[in-house]
Amino acid sequence: MIIDAHGHVTAPDSLYVWKSGLLSHRGSHGVRPPSVSDDQLREAWHAPNPSFGHVSHMDHLDEAGIDIQLISPRPYQMMHSEQPARIVTAFTEAVNDVIHQSVQLFPDRLRGIAGLPQTPDTDVAAWTKELRRTVTELGFVGALLNPDPYEGTRTPPALGDRYWYPLYEALCELDVPAVIHSAGCKPPTREPYSLHFIQEETVAVWSLLSSSVLTDFPDLKIVVSHGGGAIPYQVGRFQPDVVRSGGVPYIDRLRRLWFDTCLYTQDAIELLIRTVGVDRCLFGTEKPGTGSQINPATGGWFDDIHTLVDGIEWLSDGDRQALYEKNAVSLFRI
Amino acid sequence: MIIDAHGHVTAPDSLYVWKSGLLSHRGSHGVRPPSVSDDQLREAWHAPNPSFGHVSHMDHLDEAGIDIQLISPRPYQMMHSEQPARIVTAFTEAVNDVIHQSVQLFPDRLRGIAGLPQTPDTDVAAWTKELRRTVTELGFVGALLNPDPYEGTRTPPALGDRYWYPLYEALCELDVPAVIHSAGCKPPTREPYSLHFIQEETVAVWSLLSSSVLTDFPDLKIVVSHGGGAIPYQVGRFQPDVVRSGGVPYIDRLRRLWFDTCLYTQDAIELLIRTVGVDRCLFGTEKPGTGSQINPATGGWFDDIHTLVDGIEWLSDGDRQALYEKNAVSLFRI
Amino acid sequence: MIIDAHGHVTAPDSLYVWKSGLLSHRGSHGVRPPSVSDDQLREAWHAPNPSFGHVSHMDHLDEAGIDIQLISPRPYQMMHSEQPARIVTAFTEAVNDVIHQSVQLFPDRLRGIAGLPQTPDTDVAAWTKELRRTVTELGFVGALLNPDPYEGTRTPPALGDRYWYPLYEALCELDVPAVIHSAGCKPPTREPYSLHFIQEETVAVWSLLSSSVLTDFPDLKIVVSHGGGAIPYQVGRFQPDVVRSGGVPYIDRLRRLWFDTCLYTQDAIELLIRTVGVDRCLFGTEKPGTGSQINPATGGWFDDIHTLVDGIEWLSDGDRQALYEKNAVSLFRI
Amino acid sequence: MIIDAHGHVTAPDSLYVWKSGLLSHRGSHGVRPPSVSDDQLREAWHAPNPSFGHVSHMDHLDEAGIDIQLISPRPYQMMHSEQPARIVTAFTEAVNDVIHQSVQLFPDRLRGIAGLPQTPDTDVAAWTKELRRTVTELGFVGALLNPDPYEGTRTPPALGDRYWYPLYEALCELDVPAVIHSAGCKPPTREPYSLHFIQEETVAVWSLLSSSVLTDFPDLKIVVSHGGGAIPYQVGRFQPDVVRSGGVPYIDRLRRLWFDTCLYTQDAIELLIRTVGVDRCLFGTEKPGTGSQINPATGGWFDDIHTLVDGIEWLSDGDRQALYEKNAVSLFRI
Amino acid sequence: MIIDAHGHVTAPDSLYVWKSGLLSHRGSHGVRPPSVSDDQLREAWHAPNPSFGHVSHMDHLDEAGIDIQLISPRPYQMMHSEQPARIVTAFTEAVNDVIHQSVQLFPDRLRGIAGLPQTPDTDVAAWTKELRRTVTELGFVGALLNPDPYEGTRTPPALGDRYWYPLYEALCELDVPAVIHSAGCKPPTREPYSLHFIQEETVAVWSLLSSSVLTDFPDLKIVVSHGGGAIPYQVGRFQPDVVRSGGVPYIDRLRRLWFDTCLYTQDAIELLIRTVGVDRCLFGTEKPGTGSQINPATGGWFDDIHTLVDGIEWLSDGDRQALYEKNAVSLFRI
Amino acid sequence: MIIDAHGHVTAPDSLYVWKSGLLSHRGSHGVRPPSVSDDQLREAWHAPNPSFGHVSHMDHLDEAGIDIQLISPRPYQMMHSEQPARIVTAFTEAVNDVIHQSVQLFPDRLRGIAGLPQTPDTDVAAWTKELRRTVTELGFVGALLNPDPYEGTRTPPALGDRYWYPLYEALCELDVPAVIHSAGCKPPTREPYSLHFIQEETVAVWSLLSSSVLTDFPDLKIVVSHGGGAIPYQVGRFQPDVVRSGGVPYIDRLRRLWFDTCLYTQDAIELLIRTVGVDRCLFGTEKPGTGSQINPATGGWFDDIHTLVDGIEWLSDGDRQALYEKNAVSLFRI
Repeated sequence: MIIDAHGHVTAPDSLYVWKSGLLSHRGSHGVRPPSVSDDQLREAWHAPNPSFGHVSHMDHLDEAGIDIQLISPRPYQMMHSEQPARIVTAFTEAVNDVIHQSVQLFPDRLRGIAGLPQTPDTDVAAWTKELRRTVTELGFVGALLNPDPYEGTRTPPALGDRYWYPLYEALCELDVPAVIHSAGCKPPTREPYSLHFIQEETVAVWSLLSSSVLTDFPDLKIVVSHGGGAIPYQVGRFQPDVVRSGGVPYIDRLRRLWFDTCLYTQDAIELLIRTVGVDRCLFGTEKPGTGSQINPATGGWFDDIHTLVDGIEWLSDGDRQALYEKNAVSLFRI
Repeated sequence: MIIDAHGHVTAPDSLYVWKSGLLSHRGSHGVRPPSVSDDQLREAWHAPNPSFGHVSHMDHLDEAGIDIQLISPRPYQMMHSEQPARIVTAFTEAVNDVIHQSVQLFPDRLRGIAGLPQTPDTDVAAWTKELRRTVTELGFVGALLNPDPYEGTRTPPALGDRYWYPLYEALCELDVPAVIHSAGCKPPTREPYSLHFIQEETVAVWSLLSSSVLTDFPDLKIVVSHGGGAIPYQVGRFQPDVVRSGGVPYIDRLRRLWFDTCLYTQDAIELLIRTVGVDRCLFGTEKPGTGSQINPATGGWFDDIHTLVDGIEWLSDGDRQALYEKNAVSLFRI
Repeated sequence: MIIDAHGHVTAPDSLYVWKSGLLSHRGSHGVRPPSVSDDQLREAWHAPNPSFGHVSHMDHLDEAGIDIQLISPRPYQMMHSEQPARIVTAFTEAVNDVIHQSVQLFPDRLRGIAGLPQTPDTDVAAWTKELRRTVTELGFVGALLNPDPYEGTRTPPALGDRYWYPLYEALCELDVPAVIHSAGCKPPTREPYSLHFIQEETVAVWSLLSSSVLTDFPDLKIVVSHGGGAIPYQVGRFQPDVVRSGGVPYIDRLRRLWFDTCLYTQDAIELLIRTVGVDRCLFGTEKPGTGSQINPATGGWFDDIHTLVDGIEWLSDGDRQALYEKNAVSLFRI
Repeated sequence: MIIDAHGHVTAPDSLYVWKSGLLSHRGSHGVRPPSVSDDQLREAWHAPNPSFGHVSHMDHLDEAGIDIQLISPRPYQMMHSEQPARIVTAFTEAVNDVIHQSVQLFPDRLRGIAGLPQTPDTDVAAWTKELRRTVTELGFVGALLNPDPYEGTRTPPALGDRYWYPLYEALCELDVPAVIHSAGCKPPTREPYSLHFIQEETVAVWSLLSSSVLTDFPDLKIVVSHGGGAIPYQVGRFQPDVVRSGGVPYIDRLRRLWFDTCLYTQDAIELLIRTVGVDRCLFGTEKPGTGSQINPATGGWFDDIHTLVDGIEWLSDGDRQALYEKNAVSLFRI
Repeated sequence: MIIDAHGHVTAPDSLYVWKSGLLSHRGSHGVRPPSVSDDQLREAWHAPNPSFGHVSHMDHLDEAGIDIQLISPRPYQMMHSEQPARIVTAFTEAVNDVIHQSVQLFPDRLRGIAGLPQTPDTDVAAWTKELRRTVTELGFVGALLNPDPYEGTRTPPALGDRYWYPLYEALCELDVPAVIHSAGCKPPTREPYSLHFIQEETVAVWSLLSSSVLTDFPDLKIVVSHGGGAIPYQVGRFQPDVVRSGGVPYIDRLRRLWFDTCLYTQDAIELLIRTVGVDRCLFGTEKPGTGSQINPATGGWFDDIHTLVDGIEWLSDGDRQALYEKNAVSLFRI
Repeated sequence: MIIDAHGHVTAPDSLYVWKSGLLSHRGSHGVRPPSVSDDQLREAWHAPNPSFGHVSHMDHLDEAGIDIQLISPRPYQMMHSEQPARIVTAFTEAVNDVIHQSVQLFPDRLRGIAGLPQTPDTDVAAWTKELRRTVTELGFVGALLNPDPYEGTRTPPALGDRYWYPLYEALCELDVPAVIHSAGCKPPTREPYSLHFIQEETVAVWSLLSSSVLTDFPDLKIVVSHGGGAIPYQVGRFQPDVVRSGGVPYIDRLRRLWFDTCLYTQDAIELLIRTVGVDRCLFGTEKPGTGSQINPATGGWFDDIHTLVDGIEWLSDGDRQALYEKNAVSLFRI
């Protein structure tokens, strides 16, 4: 069985028409989301989509042999930094509801990962309310954690800061993982959102491993998207300092986290697995998404991550089973 | 014949899905708009729409006996203050193109009023390029002028300031009116966009009449939406100062502008006409829009402005013809 | 009997010389106000004043047949946004004392409306101290409420915000009305103070009627100056939304407030009375003030509001009595 | 003959009532100053004034034996930092006109020193227009120079900066001295205006002597008020650095400037004269002003600077004549 | 015996190399100071130093006949405004430790005055921890107090503000004096740090004497460096206001403080002593430092303050003993 | 022969003592650097250094068999964001002079790479003056380019912005490569300088490859430090977008740049070489520096990059020669 730990929801146009309205009327038309019928939603999952390379989400999963996908909100659409906070909260809840409705429609294929209403104008404790609702009432198996609710417009507290502790406490109490994944990225930063993902993941890992978070929360489970940003590639850079100052070796710290394989080149995936160990890796594709484009060099999709994994000769059968299924089953208690 | 000088475009969902994306990827997916087929667009104009009271745009026009409507972008969706500027410019051009395509589809029913890419990060002269394109190439008969491109987040230069002169020059050169109409309104202001319209119109009229704009540009044609904000009601307040300082009486200054009847109560429309004269008034409904809700007291639509106008007993036939048709024909050279 | 609900204090020059000094030394010469003798004050009320059209305040009242005028501080002089707070507080108290002294001098002609030391650097609860002093110790019958203590330099919390609740609580406890009236207006706004009055009244009414203030404080009495800004003229605009969202019809909400007739044109006063009902209107002139200029068209004063009211043919005798006297007597418990 | 180089204008109340209004209406009532009749002005100069210790300005001069006083605007009233700029400019011009009118009234007793409209929103070159008017048309003999037009709210460019060069050029061209004297001082600074004078003079002298201004403008004549702030007392502190870096000794640099004796203790005046030399000192009293209070220890006025000077035993007759008369005659070309 | 109340520590280069690093890595290399051996430190005190005029610190003391010097951190190096706070705290503690080690090395010659970690990002109470450590554990006899921890980049609360009370409480409890002395001064201010010292001392004295600090803390002992900034020279300016408002005469207030003689000209030192009285003066040289340059006019050091004091003929032997020794012994309980 | 393209200068303590002073007096002691004798400098290069693992710089080179090292300023010490600009400029020039002096001392072992005075308060064109001086007069072979002169305190223009063009023009004209390497990183960012290097390199590569810089400057030579940040690891992520939008494939764009091997793990170096090709790689160690710590797992230095390269079995002899020598010789024209 193949479990894809990194997928984002597909929704009918009405969700985004509503979002466009929220950003225009700023809540003065109310914040009630459009109702989405099961038929509309099923249609959305089965309809060929130009931005998915003219293939439907479900066909992508089928083609790639993905049995179960963990689906979360499309991060770049989450608009965490917008004002007033209530439009962000309403949109987040609506997206989580669409995720839940999707999981109900395709109970064998999908599991839910929640978005959190991480608006800078509300406090961290307030965000945990939606975490509790999605996990307790809707059966979600994890939640996205955006290290930058300001979306590039200010510097947020680092993940090692006590600012984030109410969220860590709730995650531990509910025993679900957080998946590090930033959202949008607005001017004046120099990075498009897609690069911001990478930069934020790099900072997030660095900050967590340099702080006492993982000691203070020994049961906290953190997954880092996109293979951990720059860290596995640059890991050698951070080892000497840790030797100088004493304490747990850097590579052992790194192995307290999990990483998905959303990397698009075999060399990168190999480096990831060699660096953090197969037991800390989760198969993840972000499919359909950024990589849903035919690679002219291969004729396949750029995001056919499974073909890259399959191409790694030195993985044992047990390694592959861990990567494709067992690690995710265990971590997300699927 | 009834000409409605105040209408806003109806467009397929794809336009707003695209807008939602622009605000999320900030241009990193490119800024090419979705193509809209004539069939999709015709369908949009004929489809019952929940936010229009479950009636189509065209049915609204037919019901109200409106022969020709001047259509401009939906102002609250224009997102002038967003960054980077190129997403605003692209969206504005796309909306103008949908207006043009609509006019082509319904040449007997519609005329175009352009939106301008009034982003605070570009200069006023740059906005006139789109004005020229829409008037010269697309045959538009006027353009919206937003006095607050910051959408409530900063104080813009007042309309009496020389900052705006490049736009006034282009309007005079092309001999088309500008229609004062603000766009969105974002926190921290205390006003929803709909009230911001009124406030901005009030400031706009005050500023124009207190400055030398109308002297410097004797041929400039300005229409103020929604009956001129607060000014006709409060006009007595501004008369004594003008007597003190000398110069053209306030009421004569006011009559240098045009006003539409988008006011929703007969008392208000009567006050407007009495105050500025029937020759400075244009029939306008903003239909379908804010007022497209059944009035429980009458069983008709709140925005059935024609029933309000028809209820004014003291208007002569000539007055009605001027109001419904001749003033607009003359001003917009329809 | 004619009661004028909207008058502002007349004071000797020494008050303003002292104010000019406060703004120059910022309190370093102390904040003790000049003493004003009864003779000086009586002289001020009886002296012809160039800014009043070369007529004295008392002569204006006599000419217009005003028996009793409610007098408050001249709002545009109140300098709420200045620093340090103690010069604002001292000036406010001094002006209230001059009002009190005037009422003592002319007990049959005047009643006091307090100014509040609404400096942004002190909290709302602190302002109620002066409210209590003026009502309890000096016998004042109401107080001005400035919705914008920043005087145009920042966006204040809207009147629907809980920020203002300590003031509402004190008003209810003392059972006196608040009169909405902003103060000065400083750059960078685009509005002179006189237009700022109108804009702030518009926002104030909108905010109060869109919030739960009038439900949370069922006994709160609010008077809106200058005929309610733009709202009675634009009221049709706000009705459909309320129908959509349910709840008390907009016009019924509006009738929870009171409005004065300080409008200067008969058309506007008629619209006001038709819209909110004669029982919610108070005769008010702002005399002597902005309108104390001879109208070349009539030969009378622009602010001869009584001639405008007298010109409304459809008012009954009972209506006139309510408007001129009974509403004010009842509301202010005169 | 005694020439007092440091006096400030006395004006009728109407000037300050007008100023209070300008700060309230911000120019929306126009910026025309009140006309002051010769009688009113003569009365102001002869009337006992509580803030002058209940003695008139002219009586103060007579009592102290001052034959001629150089009068400039009262600096703390000049409101340079206020907005919009046109109220500052209008007030400055009006004060200069009152100074001129005073000099016309008392041609044997007074000479004019101009205020400049040093608003931060206008450029330095614009200020020179009023300098030219007052010197060329009104016969003024110098001008105040405020090193801090922001009045404590921001850091201005130091006097050594090229920012100030257009003013230095005009001063040289007209061949009149500038008198360093700051104006008001607003929060958040920690200094009342009176201490701000001292601090600004200290910075001004330091900046001028550390820059190339006095080399670039060999004919520039600068008078520093209040005995030069802290510099003559602290002068030893600045000498070693100049020795280290080479160049003109500090004391020689200091002697390129002039200083007035407005110091109120004999010890301080002695230190000043010893430090800079009697040829660089001008008799100045700031009378009536801060020091116009009876000293309980002596029974005389604190600002009887002449008694302090007279008490210095080691001054020769020539020294006294230079100090009291000749230096001023020569510098100001009286 | 001569006690010099104003000296700053001399330290090996390694301290400043470490500081340079702290400002570069901002703590990411850790904040452990370099260890300084007694030999290195003794060498530093005995080595000729180019910035001391090529003479060693100890030789300077010997040459000037100084028996005991109170040494504090070099203020301009203290970097109070830098971030993060922990590099400031670490540096302050390290400097205090070097002072302590120096006093241990030269127990007959030196006494310690502490630096406090006055970073704007920590609260005042936190600073007292280091005060307690240095006084209680290291035997220091006082502490520097920087009135401007922002080092010129923002306006701090004035010393009369309750913000500072936790520090005053600790000083009283430990019964040690605070020595007013600012630290660095960064752009955009117009003052080099050396002038900033003077300006801050002026504001500090003004603020203390205008507030209730010395009444609220009758046992608080405050020494003002560099002869009190501008105050003794300008003291006459502040006397009239105090007479007007009543209360303790200004000169008596001034005599609640102590002042050092760090002034470099005999005239200034004479003025200081005459103004505040010999009993409030402490001999202080700041040697070696700013004044450690040969005066070409005398051939001696500018900072040979003892020669200036010796030159004052009117001092009695008792005066000299008080100034050189007894006042310091008593105040600092040496 | 082994050429190490990534080394930083070693300098005597006096350089950093001087820097510490510059940051304290901000230029008020002047900005003349300490003179460094050849003996002092030679000693610095040969002295065991605790921060280098108690080994000297030269011994590190010898141990690692490095024949020639390109040395640039230690980036984290460069303080680009400090004010005033002249202390940054002076420090940069002094460091370049020490580099030049070092190259003169060890002409067979060292080559110079310049630092540029990239202060945000000067314009880009001004920085090229020092580039010209170092290349033309001192024979340097390249220059560091810091993409973030604000050192984490603001967002700079991206490297694709025309802001940087004057620098690109000068680099092309002089025909020397720029080496991308940021400097310090100050609060409030969440990154220590060492991680900031990586983040800035990632943004730099992304920005250059998404802009027209490499087309506009076909001869521009850019080296990216530390293996290109995150890009080679994440390269797959950026390929699909380029396919969508057309144009040069991403990997071909990437191969327009050069990268050094400063990565500390063999896996990472292998991934780099496989991704960009051996012809775009330069051997670089940053030795001695961050990695100069004994790796407990191997007993060697972490920064023994040559042992990692030697461990890559699939490199040919030609590959090794290119990597160790030929690529650098050709690129830097050594």
